[in-house]
Amino acid sequence: MTETAVATPVLERFRAGRAAAVRLATTTGAERASALAAIAETIDANIGAIVSANGLDLANGRENGLSVALLDRLTLTPERVTSLSASVREIAALPDPLGQTVRGSRLANGLKIDQVRVPFGVVGAIYEARPNVTVDIAALALASGNASVLRGGSAAERSNAVLVALIQDAVSSVGLPRETVQTVDDFGRAGATALMQARGLVDVLVPRGSAGLIETVVSSSTVPVIETGAGVVHIVLDESAREDWAVDIVHNAKVQRPSVCNAVETVLVHEASAERLLPAVLDRLSAAGVTVHGDDRTREIWPSAVPAGEEEWATEHMSLDIGVRVVRDLDEAIEHIRRYSTSHTESIITDDLANAERFLSEVDSAVVMVNASTRFTDGGEFGFGAEVGISTQKLHARGPMGLTELTSTKWIVRGNGQSRA
Amino acid sequence: MTETAVATPVLERFRAGRAAAVRLATTTGAERASALAAIAETIDANIGAIVSANGLDLANGRENGLSVALLDRLTLTPERVTSLSASVREIAALPDPLGQTVRGSRLANGLKIDQVRVPFGVVGAIYEARPNVTVDIAALALASGNASVLRGGSAAERSNAVLVALIQDAVSSVGLPRETVQTVDDFGRAGATALMQARGLVDVLVPRGSAGLIETVVSSSTVPVIETGAGVVHIVLDESAREDWAVDIVHNAKVQRPSVCNAVETVLVHEASAERLLPAVLDRLSAAGVTVHGDDRTREIWPSAVPAGEEEWATEHMSLDIGVRVVRDLDEAIEHIRRYSTSHTESIITDDLANAERFLSEVDSAVVMVNASTRFTDGGEFGFGAEVGISTQKLHARGPMGLTELTSTKWIVRGNGQSRA
Repeated sequence: MTETAVATPVLERFRAGRAAAVRLATTTGAERASALAAIAETIDANIGAIVSANGLDLANGRENGLSVALLDRLTLTPERVTSLSASVREIAALPDPLGQTVRGSRLANGLKIDQVRVPFGVVGAIYEARPNVTVDIAALALASGNASVLRGGSAAERSNAVLVALIQDAVSSVGLPRETVQTVDDFGRAGATALMQARGLVDVLVPRGSAGLIETVVSSSTVPVIETGAGVVHIVLDESAREDWAVDIVHNAKVQRPSVCNAVETVLVHEASAERLLPAVLDRLSAAGVTVHGDDRTREIWPSAVPAGEEEWATEHMSLDIGVRVVRDLDEAIEHIRRYSTSHTESIITDDLANAERFLSEVDSAVVMVNASTRFTDGGEFGFGAEVGISTQKLHARGPMGLTELTSTKWIVRGNGQSRA
Repeated sequence: MTETAVATPVLERFRAGRAAAVRLATTTGAERASALAAIAETIDANIGAIVSANGLDLANGRENGLSVALLDRLTLTPERVTSLSASVREIAALPDPLGQTVRGSRLANGLKIDQVRVPFGVVGAIYEARPNVTVDIAALALASGNASVLRGGSAAERSNAVLVALIQDAVSSVGLPRETVQTVDDFGRAGATALMQARGLVDVLVPRGSAGLIETVVSSSTVPVIETGAGVVHIVLDESAREDWAVDIVHNAKVQRPSVCNAVETVLVHEASAERLLPAVLDRLSAAGVTVHGDDRTREIWPSAVPAGEEEWATEHMSLDIGVRVVRDLDEAIEHIRRYSTSHTESIITDDLANAERFLSEVDSAVVMVNASTRFTDGGEFGFGAEVGISTQKLHARGPMGLTELTSTKWIVRGNGQSRA
């Protein structure tokens, strides 16, 4: 279907979304919470239908040769569906961000000015093979008073269609417009294209998925975009790193869920601790089935590592592969991160206070950590209930994005006849 | 000069800006304040040089037939130069936004998470014929720990060259890199093009100027953009509006400085108060040389109005012209604003509390006012010291942008061995 063929119907959907947004902007927090409760109930009542629709997407994905990592992201087990409704309930329980006064003052001329939180209006999202994102973004957008228009990608089209229909039933059951949540999956790529060009109808666009998808959205959109996270994530093992923390944290950061953006891709180890730490750290990884791509020094210490080429350091594997490099000192580690990181998350394992503080202040990433697993960069873990995505840009939002990140503000000025001198 | 011809030299300038940003990120507020003090002194010590360079731009502008409004924006009198250094001193006195903790908590697993304010890094600006913007943006960027790369437009090239050179002398006199502030004016249009495409080297881009310039930047940039304000600004005269406030505020909003974006372009008057208010409001405007473009009902009440065509309502005159329309009620006024406003600033003159609150909540603009002149939408008036611009988008910043709007945040996570369950 060509873009021109669908342009008008898509625009009508965007306009319906804007009309829904006008209605949503006047809802109370209680109304939005009851809509979210209805969504959670509806999801729980339809686990079978959701899982079977997802089964069709999975069969399709296997035929099309999707990678194990992609199939994992696509999979909705009954347990994962239940965790979706649980996160909707968690979102419903969060404080309402709307109407909060961010700043306010009375000017010398008597004018009272207040900056208050308001919804964006219509939030767009373009993502791939992640049906859980459909529920997370729809729920977070609704909780923050926004309508949403979703493009979930062909690989998850059946799963998303069922989820969106259930969400629309739920919101209309409490008197909100069905167009509070819409999909443009049925327009195929043309729907995504229209979404990227819907400036004035869509207020913000969030891409989630492969580096290629994000690059396309960033370079093709006239709608303001929040770039989310390809994650070439680093863990630095400092000279003073505790061996048990190094072993456990690197293992957790790589193995617990390798297919997500906060999984570690590169370990940088201080040469003074390489012989002490690498054998235990890499034995634990390889016991878990991880392939280690090492530089020359790493392979001297741990010979079963495969040689790492230059491209290794810029690669987001999202699989059980990891790059390991021995560095001269913290400067070389920070320099390596500055050069190859996607500025998502970096962690240092150290007992040295000065090095910890230096790392936290000099590494310019959305999340910087000391002695913790990079897997904690997550809206749920941060207490946001769920996340829209993890922003790796610096505009508007940085790191996990929750309710507050889906709001804008406006200034309210109250006077009594003031003119400017 | 073609873009390819300048690509490499421009990129080197961006890289130098990024290097300067790394240095600026580690400066103390006191260091930045002393650099700003040096800038103010240098400007005051070189008023003659600045005004004479500006004289060349003005002569050039007259030859090229720039409008009176554009020439006004281009003009630097000794008084205006002094007000520039005054605003730099005001910025230097503002609280340092960097290092502030925006949010923080301790998670159940013991992790301490803190969201702290950090600089963007490199701020780009593309603007036209406004040499004062050069100083305002350079000073605000520096005060918030950012380097800046400026494209000020050919009409003000001589004025900007002198100002940037003076600022570079001042910052280097206190030990900061000259590349803290740079211009790409010498690369012509290719410099602007490179700035729009410098993703990864420039963190945020702020366009200021004509609707055409802003549209070009928004649609051509891969760097995240903060769209600033074309202002089709409205004042609503409600049924209960006080005549003296209506007359004074409309006059002030149109006449005090017609060439700027917060000047009113359209007056919407309730039909029940049109006969009572329009004669006095429009007599006062026309006595000030304003041409009134009225709808039919307006011209019945005030015959010397010229007929307003449909295009009138979407026009930002930036001159002594104003559109006047009689509306049935507040609904029609809000509907007109929803249709034609650029969402910059709207004000209602009323004594009716319910109508005031309805206007404030239902009109979705960056700044909404009751009984005040729209000219107050200004960073200086809001106490920001100066402004980067007035954002009319909803992402990151909305309304006048000061120091805080030039910062991002990062999350700092402190653990003691935590892994994710």
